[in-house]
Parts: sequence; structure tokens; C-alpha cells
Amino acid sequence: MKRFKLTVAYDGTNYCGWQIQPNGITIEEVLNKKLSKLTGSDIRVIGASRTDSGVHALGNVAVFDSDTTIPPGRLSHALNQRLPEDIVVVKSEEVPLNWHPRYCNSVKTYEYHILNAEIPDPTRRLTRYFVSYKLDLEKMKEAAGYLAGEHDFASFCNVRTNVEDTVRIVYSVDIDKRGDEITIRITGNGFLYNMVRIIVGTLLRVGRGFYTPGQVKDILEAQDRQAAGVTAPPHGLMLVGIEYNQ
Amino acid sequence: MKRFKLTVAYDGTNYCGWQIQPNGITIEEVLNKKLSKLTGSDIRVIGASRTDSGVHALGNVAVFDSDTTIPPGRLSHALNQRLPEDIVVVKSEEVPLNWHPRYCNSVKTYEYHILNAEIPDPTRRLTRYFVSYKLDLEKMKEAAGYLAGEHDFASFCNVRTNVEDTVRIVYSVDIDKRGDEITIRITGNGFLYNMVRIIVGTLLRVGRGFYTPGQVKDILEAQDRQAAGVTAPPHGLMLVGIEYNQ
Repeated sequence: MKRFKLTVAYDGTNYCGWQIQPNGITIEEVLNKKLSKLTGSDIRVIGASRTDSGVHALGNVAVFDSDTTIPPGRLSHALNQRLPEDIVVVKSEEVPLNWHPRYCNSVKTYEYHILNAEIPDPTRRLTRYFVSYKLDLEKMKEAAGYLAGEHDFASFCNVRTNVEDTVRIVYSVDIDKRGDEITIRITGNGFLYNMVRIIVGTLLRVGRGFYTPGQVKDILEAQDRQAAGVTAPPHGLMLVGIEYNQ
Repeated sequence: MKRFKLTVAYDGTNYCGWQIQPNGITIEEVLNKKLSKLTGSDIRVIGASRTDSGVHALGNVAVFDSDTTIPPGRLSHALNQRLPEDIVVVKSEEVPLNWHPRYCNSVKTYEYHILNAEIPDPTRRLTRYFVSYKLDLEKMKEAAGYLAGEHDFASFCNVRTNVEDTVRIVYSVDIDKRGDEITIRITGNGFLYNMVRIIVGTLLRVGRGFYTPGQVKDILEAQDRQAAGVTAPPHGLMLVGIEYNQ
């Protein structure tokens, strides 16, 4: 028996997120089905990040165990032949049998993509959140500075979750503008449910002038979801990658 | 009666091109239906460029006549409320009643987008042509130099067309690489059927080393479709805009 690690990219538009659920097709479900067919035994992958419906990924990670004779490095190729066009296994490799994608120390990187223009662009509508109002980038960057570091991010966590420890380390929040696109890139050791999208929704309120940058510090300290801005929509979000320390 | 000019952007993925046809939904058809409902009379738009199935646009142009009282500049807003998300009217304005989008002198700009990487990216699959082989950009640029100018582009015209005059002026063919994306930007006074996609298919053969740059000159002079490369797929193509001299 071997443990296989997959690095998975997908366009989340047509899926009800990563995790298997009764009312729609998910990334996890498609991977399980295709892997089971490919290896000839019942496969259930374990994913690193359970991305929401509509959220995209360039490098989500999943593992599964199998005694298939397909060489680990070649498995991605065999699998991609069977996967739909909107899911691509970027890499496949063997990892130790006790390696787990969620219990290992890791650094996750997310990007949130905003199209800041007067008119929406239909060719970018599925991967960019369209915002027509003017944004003060300098104020957004100042606000972002308060979020970096080890904090209790309870204010930035969807209440429909019962995680006990809401302390996380955010290593960086970088905001960059190129042409009409704004990218908010966030790295951290872990993220609470909807945390990136609530951070983005809050930073957009700062950019619009509804909050001062300093208020973001107050929002953090409130440790109350009601204090923060609305959750930004899923389609602007992309899980760029996960780096493991071991 | 007024003549209205529309500047139209669309994601061509889910349409059988611009022009109305029996076996699938088209951009023209959707515009006609929504404009007829909006104005209360039967509207048939005339388009500047009949883009193929899967081809995208940021600025295709269409006109129609109507005695609607909706102010020309506000019509785009009213129409966008009714259009599906993948079609956006960027601008609406009044033009003289004798203004025609195809019989006026114009400069058209197309871009062809290539993702040149080892692994496909599912989030860009609908707007970038994925090419995994290495491309020699300098040779492609040299070849592109032979295409600029006034030429008989018969070698770069789909044979399923019976246009008499195959002479066109290409003002520029610019090739630019940013990260893993290559953009081929072509401007001209008019384009034959599939001309941009055949030019791209030919330049890709040069980039791969199948043709020398100088052979592109021979291909032009052959005035024979068989001499040129394959037609590049539609989804990499984008009609960026059309500028009219009057």
C-alpha cells in the first residue's frame, strides 16, 4: 500500500465546492469516482482545503491510499485523461503513509481577484469580482497591515462553524493593482471558514471609505463576526497553493 | 427613427458565434430578442464582425433602428438588465441613419491568447489556447514582420468562403509574453474568414521550428490555403475593438 499526494487545480464554477454533499457534484466526488475507476478499488481522497462552491484552486492538495502499480509520478497523467476539463491534477507523488494534508504544518496562499472598472467584462466574470466603485488602495494597504500577525480572527469567521480555536497566523496581506485588476494575496498557517472572503469584504469597505483603516484593528479586537464587513463572493477567490514544511 | 450603435462584449463560450443560425443560440439572436422586448417592436441588429462559435469580444459593434424614447446613452443600461451575464453592452450611442458598421472604414484589433506552460490551467481554459511545447518568440516575431502591410491574404482565408477580393492591410502583428501568457495582437483594415486564427496557427508552427520565419513570406506569396498552418482554435481569440474613421 502506498499513499499518493495529488496537487489539484480546478475551475470551481460548476461545482458545489470540494466536499461531498447530497445536492450537487463536488471536486472530491469526481476525484473519488475517477480514481476508483482508474485503480479498480474504492478510493476516498482526503483534501487539505474544503473550498466553497465557486471558489477556484491552482494547488489544492489531496491524498489517498492505493496498491495500484501505476508509478506515482505518472498517475496525474492517467487521471487527467479521465477528468473533465475543469479539473486538472498538476502533480502526483508518493508520500509516507502517515502523511496527512491537514495535520502537517503548512503555509496556505490565497488570492482574491477584483475587476475594478466602470463596466463588467463578461470574459472575466467567473474569476474576478466586479467592483465599479472607486477604491482607495493606500487605505486598504494600511488596513491590511493590522491583519498580519498572530491574532484571534473570530471576527473574520463564519458563525456557522464550531471551531474552538480561532487564533491563526497571517504571514502577509499584499494588495497589488495591475491595469483594472486588483489582487489581494494572503498567506497564513491556516484559515477559518470564510476568513479570506470576510477579510476581503472588510478591506473593500475600507477602500470605499466606509471604515477607516484603524477600524480594522477594532474589528479584530471585537472578536465578533458582526463587527466585520460582508463576505466577498466566492468566484473571486483562488487557493493558489499549500506549502508543507515536511 | 434613430439609429443606435452598440459596443458589445461577450464570452463566446456558450454561443454558436454571432450570426443567427438554425442549430444553436447566437449573440445576434439574444440581442434581437432582448431589444425587441425592450423597445416593443421587432429589432434586427446588424453586426460589424460575425465572430465564430467560441470566439470572445470586448468591443464588437452592432446597429439597429428604432423610434424608442429611451435616451441613446441610457439604452445600454436598460439592455444590460435583461441580458445574460455573458453578454454586456459596453456603450450605446446615436449615429447618423446612413452609418453602417461594415461599410465604414475601420481598424479592427484582435488578440489571440496562448497559455504556454507545462500543465493546463483549468481557470483559464475558456479564454487561453493551451500550448505545452516550447516556442521561439524571436522567430515568431520575425515571421510576423512579413505579414504586416498590404497583401493578398488568400493563403490565410478559410476556403469555405467566396469573397472576391482577398487583399487586406495588416497594420501590425505584435507578440508579447508576460509570465506564462503569450498575446498575439493584430490590427488591420479588415480580416478574411478565419484569417487571424490561420495566422496564429502558422506563427505557432514557426515558433515550434516547423517553418522558418522566411517561409511565411513564401506562404503569403503562394496565395493558397494549403500552404499555411492549421487554424488555431477559436477560444483563444478575442475581438478587442473596432475604431471607425468617421
